[in-house]
Amino acid sequence: MASASDHQNMSRAIELARKGRYTTRPNPSVGCVIVQGDQVVGEGYHERAGEPHAEVHALAMAGSQAKGATAYVTLEPCSHFGRTPPCAEALIKAGVAEVVVGMQDPNPQVAGRGIRMLEEKGVVTRVGVMEAEVRTLNPGFIKRMQTGRPYVRAKLAMSLDGRTAMASGESQWITGPQARSEVQSLRALSGAIVTGVGSILHDNSSLTLRENELNLPEAEALVQNQPLRVVLDSSLRTPVDAKVITGPGQVMIFCSVQADKARKRALEEAGAEVLMLDSHDGRINLEQMLEILITKDINDVLLETGATLAGAMMEQGLVDELVVFMAPVLMGSSARPLMDMPFATMAEKLNLNITDIRAVGNDWKITAFPNND
Amino acid sequence: MASASDHQNMSRAIELARKGRYTTRPNPSVGCVIVQGDQVVGEGYHERAGEPHAEVHALAMAGSQAKGATAYVTLEPCSHFGRTPPCAEALIKAGVAEVVVGMQDPNPQVAGRGIRMLEEKGVVTRVGVMEAEVRTLNPGFIKRMQTGRPYVRAKLAMSLDGRTAMASGESQWITGPQARSEVQSLRALSGAIVTGVGSILHDNSSLTLRENELNLPEAEALVQNQPLRVVLDSSLRTPVDAKVITGPGQVMIFCSVQADKARKRALEEAGAEVLMLDSHDGRINLEQMLEILITKDINDVLLETGATLAGAMMEQGLVDELVVFMAPVLMGSSARPLMDMPFATMAEKLNLNITDIRAVGNDWKITAFPNND
Repeated sequence: MASASDHQNMSRAIELARKGRYTTRPNPSVGCVIVQGDQVVGEGYHERAGEPHAEVHALAMAGSQAKGATAYVTLEPCSHFGRTPPCAEALIKAGVAEVVVGMQDPNPQVAGRGIRMLEEKGVVTRVGVMEAEVRTLNPGFIKRMQTGRPYVRAKLAMSLDGRTAMASGESQWITGPQARSEVQSLRALSGAIVTGVGSILHDNSSLTLRENELNLPEAEALVQNQPLRVVLDSSLRTPVDAKVITGPGQVMIFCSVQADKARKRALEEAGAEVLMLDSHDGRINLEQMLEILITKDINDVLLETGATLAGAMMEQGLVDELVVFMAPVLMGSSARPLMDMPFATMAEKLNLNITDIRAVGNDWKITAFPNND
Repeated sequence: MASASDHQNMSRAIELARKGRYTTRPNPSVGCVIVQGDQVVGEGYHERAGEPHAEVHALAMAGSQAKGATAYVTLEPCSHFGRTPPCAEALIKAGVAEVVVGMQDPNPQVAGRGIRMLEEKGVVTRVGVMEAEVRTLNPGFIKRMQTGRPYVRAKLAMSLDGRTAMASGESQWITGPQARSEVQSLRALSGAIVTGVGSILHDNSSLTLRENELNLPEAEALVQNQPLRVVLDSSLRTPVDAKVITGPGQVMIFCSVQADKARKRALEEAGAEVLMLDSHDGRINLEQMLEILITKDINDVLLETGATLAGAMMEQGLVDELVVFMAPVLMGSSARPLMDMPFATMAEKLNLNITDIRAVGNDWKITAFPNND
């Protein structure tokens, strides 16, 4: 059903959508191309929440040439008045004859409405062109809309032999500057960065976006919109002067209901939002934590933490994607494991789909997807 | 000094040399191209020890067109009478005007002699064209000639988190058929396969080349020339009916001088060659073991063994290349390590150069070189 020109135009729309991927959150990244005959007459993408959608930019560029044209848009045009008027209506008004859609709106409440609105006005629609590629644009937005939980990427750094630090706790940057810059990009993709109090106490990590390490053209703007930093800290051991508290941007701490009220007040006075959650054996309910992040419109969570929390998230099937930076060293058999997951039998092993490994400076970036089904 | 056509012709000579890489041992793989003007008039490669060298094949193809031609040869032409007459002499007789050499003979006893023989007869020579690439053809031959020790590749299979089996010893093939076929190719490259008695007792590995798993055109011939199988077994626990003993090809067992003489005789009667070596705390002297393999004209050793022996070889700086097959699974933090190397401090960590990672079926093949300096 999809022709070569469909692929070409939708590919361009995907390329346009990608330009907004660091800046649209909590909105999805969307791209649009308007074609008259075999001529591209309009192009656009969503740049920032609150600003016009992709279709509006593309229609403005096309002007009167939109009449009778075909619009390619990566995501179903919206049908509701939000901060902007509905895009389906704008396409109808401009006289667009056909709309080719990459994927339906993932929100089950509104999916298909924009398409129906177009069809009712006689606009021809085709849905699902290059859907697999289109879905990779917004894994977090899709996950949030379809499941009520954010998409979790776990970022890990290890040696070739799967170790993260010496048994003594001695550690140091084992990966190089290019890998650290990639981590900055992962942070920029994320609405929230989640860590455990152990990482805060051990490394005093700030978990911020840093302009000088972010190798992206929009670095200056991105650091003005720091991701939410989230610390899992059941007994509130985070120091009020920890870098994660004093750095720019918002901080949220999850603790257990048994946590000390005075510590809670002190952290709140230092600027953190502190939430008490159910806990079991001193461990915070991780599913509940993720569901609360949804109330902050978080699509993408970056988990940057030690072996204990990473292992717990992984074992509970809460990790959607692993991004492992592998350094060209061997740290030996006494060193700390990648994730604390004390499996006893082969039956417990977790299967992955490793989709990509590529060189990042002297290190290697491994992308893998757990089979959580 | 090297022109574009030098690169083109030497690249072709390298390509030809590669055709012999599974069959020339203990000889090096060598390729030769003879060029008259910008016309290739002769090509050849060394196919099998005892058969003609690359230059002889290329000269035969070129015939009278060799007169005044340029010969490209990956390795310095030989100057001595061995199983065949010296190639330097054959090039002179054919009237070749210029010889371009990838690298000098790595044997310090004869290096440069072939080149001198050519120059004395007025043949122009150039040496070192594409030497880095040429050296990768014969790492084992070069290592043996220059150091008196074979080149050791350690083949390992691990999960993404660097584990090889469960703590209980429970294991299974974690890598797929394509990875196993690649291991067969590594065996075919090797003059000897070295393992520890633990692998024999635990897995009853045969360590043979198997025609149905060898994905190479010359598979049928290769299985007729099995690599030497070497078992490090200080107290001679290898059963006389172990597959490594009963399978096709020669077997060598290294034991300590304290080993039981009756066990030694029984294994010898079963067809194994048993050598007693110095040992320290029940551990065989690994350097001595490698030096003895040289007496069998072994260029390339494939180490296929468990974490203890692999760790010991690695820590002693005796591994030249790591080939790690990584399966897309997580085996967890209680599982067995890649190599037993109980480092306590970061200062002890071993630095590697990871040069290549590529997909092999669902697994990934990682090639790394330790910094043994």
